[in-house]
Amino acid sequence: MAQTTPNHTQKVYGWAAHDSSGKITPYIFTRRENGINDVTIRILYCGICHTDLHQARNDWGITMYPIVPGHEITGVITKVGSNVKRFKEGDRVGVGCLAASCLECEFCINSQENYCDQMQFSYNGIFWDGSITYGGYSKMLVADHRYVVHIPGNLPMDAAAPLLCAGITIFSPMKENNMVGSPGKKMGIVGLGGLGHVAVKFGKAFGHHVTVISTSPSKENEAKLRLGADNFLLSTNAEQMQAARRTLDFIIDTVSGHHSLGPILELLKVNGTLAVVGAPDKPFEMPSFPLIFGKRTVKGSIIGGMADTQEMMDVCGKHNITCDIEIITPDQINEAMERLANNDVRYRFVIDIATNSSNI
Amino acid sequence: MAQTTPNHTQKVYGWAAHDSSGKITPYIFTRRENGINDVTIRILYCGICHTDLHQARNDWGITMYPIVPGHEITGVITKVGSNVKRFKEGDRVGVGCLAASCLECEFCINSQENYCDQMQFSYNGIFWDGSITYGGYSKMLVADHRYVVHIPGNLPMDAAAPLLCAGITIFSPMKENNMVGSPGKKMGIVGLGGLGHVAVKFGKAFGHHVTVISTSPSKENEAKLRLGADNFLLSTNAEQMQAARRTLDFIIDTVSGHHSLGPILELLKVNGTLAVVGAPDKPFEMPSFPLIFGKRTVKGSIIGGMADTQEMMDVCGKHNITCDIEIITPDQINEAMERLANNDVRYRFVIDIATNSSNI
Repeated sequence: MAQTTPNHTQKVYGWAAHDSSGKITPYIFTRRENGINDVTIRILYCGICHTDLHQARNDWGITMYPIVPGHEITGVITKVGSNVKRFKEGDRVGVGCLAASCLECEFCINSQENYCDQMQFSYNGIFWDGSITYGGYSKMLVADHRYVVHIPGNLPMDAAAPLLCAGITIFSPMKENNMVGSPGKKMGIVGLGGLGHVAVKFGKAFGHHVTVISTSPSKENEAKLRLGADNFLLSTNAEQMQAARRTLDFIIDTVSGHHSLGPILELLKVNGTLAVVGAPDKPFEMPSFPLIFGKRTVKGSIIGGMADTQEMMDVCGKHNITCDIEIITPDQINEAMERLANNDVRYRFVIDIATNSSNI
Repeated sequence: MAQTTPNHTQKVYGWAAHDSSGKITPYIFTRRENGINDVTIRILYCGICHTDLHQARNDWGITMYPIVPGHEITGVITKVGSNVKRFKEGDRVGVGCLAASCLECEFCINSQENYCDQMQFSYNGIFWDGSITYGGYSKMLVADHRYVVHIPGNLPMDAAAPLLCAGITIFSPMKENNMVGSPGKKMGIVGLGGLGHVAVKFGKAFGHHVTVISTSPSKENEAKLRLGADNFLLSTNAEQMQAARRTLDFIIDTVSGHHSLGPILELLKVNGTLAVVGAPDKPFEMPSFPLIFGKRTVKGSIIGGMADTQEMMDVCGKHNITCDIEIITPDQINEAMERLANNDVRYRFVIDIATNSSNI
């Protein structure tokens, strides 16, 4: 791999971390020319996902510095390659976590590109030409059109940005588990953060009875009054948890802190499903009894394929669903990351990339 | 609850534990008269399940002493109630873990009685009349006919006994996960004990490619030469485990010792399923990454419903499947339990109940 190829002729103004301090500073780098399958995107907004923080600080030991994070990208197309039929100049588009996949395996053929074993991420990945991918903390992106989606005209570009990661991460397991187009289920959501608040919105939009489960009593009003959840369970309250045993059909667990799945599994009816989308550093604890006595299912899921991502965007357009965000300017990224590390955001930071006046 | 009711008029010779030493001694008790929905069974054989050991020693803190263990029961019907049409005197039958359920809930109606929340076990349970249930370490049993199955004529009554628990515990998740009647899958089996050796037999009988996964190198010859497994993975050998990543469609984990599900999940293809049937004292460790990146599923399962139990027995008859057993006499129960505690049995102890000459 290399950071660039001879084909990388386009200078881009962006923001990168250069070491495990994770500190983000302005960074000028190059992107490839717009190929026949590519579109060039003028980036307007980019969400700050918790993954950005982990990668900027090399928490997982796999960061290739300098790293330009960002995989919740919205912008406008400025150029299209000759093979590209789905997009034209001026289109409002989004790019999420995927930059490349093999395009030939069963997963790629079925638009589950996210499970292709050659899948590469939008940043800190290795593109087909061998170059390291740089993400959306930058003013311009060249992306293969197969990893780009349209953004419905009624959605604001800033609050739509986190849908590209947070949104699809929730939508995909909901679709997989028959929670889209099949209303009236009892749905639980563990954790009310960037992912969880989107889950409440989807759950209500799709006609379910939504229960938020959290360790934090202050989230009760948030969940019910601000987001419209029907019920709230304080997971540290054994009495509440006991009373709610065997009541839910489907739970999505968004929490990235270490925890046991046992009390959560107990909330499921027999045959119920717990979808896990978080990635705590330490393994989950999972006692056998609630799993086997309730014939329950635990299913992992990570982001989603491109067809599902477009479907999710269209569904959000139809239901007017976006994320609750806090807009920042690029020079506030470090401060925002600090606050994110302390879970002090309601519910997603989004960088107003276009506010920066550099013309590179 | 009470140990008996006025209706308990029949004296029975059996074997019970009286305290947490778990020591089993002869014990004379009473059973109810044969009711209109009951059958009376002269017990011939009873398997020793690991659960018997746990319950005899009160490992789970729920034992009601004296306890007469045993839920892998085969025998011959000596009396039938007036409502009973499916059985007649002289029929060869089996009784497993279930003694009662509500008969009215969705699970009972769909013959998933094992998930009925009023389900009661064959021993250490509370029967409808309020009496404590006593199991198969005894010479006679009165059972509601709805929890009794026929044993095919070609199956020996001793080696068929453990099918009532070990057999159905394996068969039920295999059926649930499309592993019965759908040959050609890559199946993994974690642990080669009482449950695991039955899983190998089912896997081969149902036309699958079977891989046994064990911590014990000595199990390789057992698995391949004696039981006909196609492949063996030593789970402590990182190289072997790495080479086998993403190769299996379905794994059944039978191990009751503490372990991590991470290395096992890695063996599954994307979308693969791990069925958990063991119940370790400590929670499983389950890292998120192999779960979410492989979109894998973990499903719990405990024993099976009555329709599945009869189907399992019939399938065993068709394929001539029984358990590999070691026959003991009732006075050897304590010794057998000691050996079982040390995993020193190939693969199930079965008590020859009829060998005892007491006529009570």
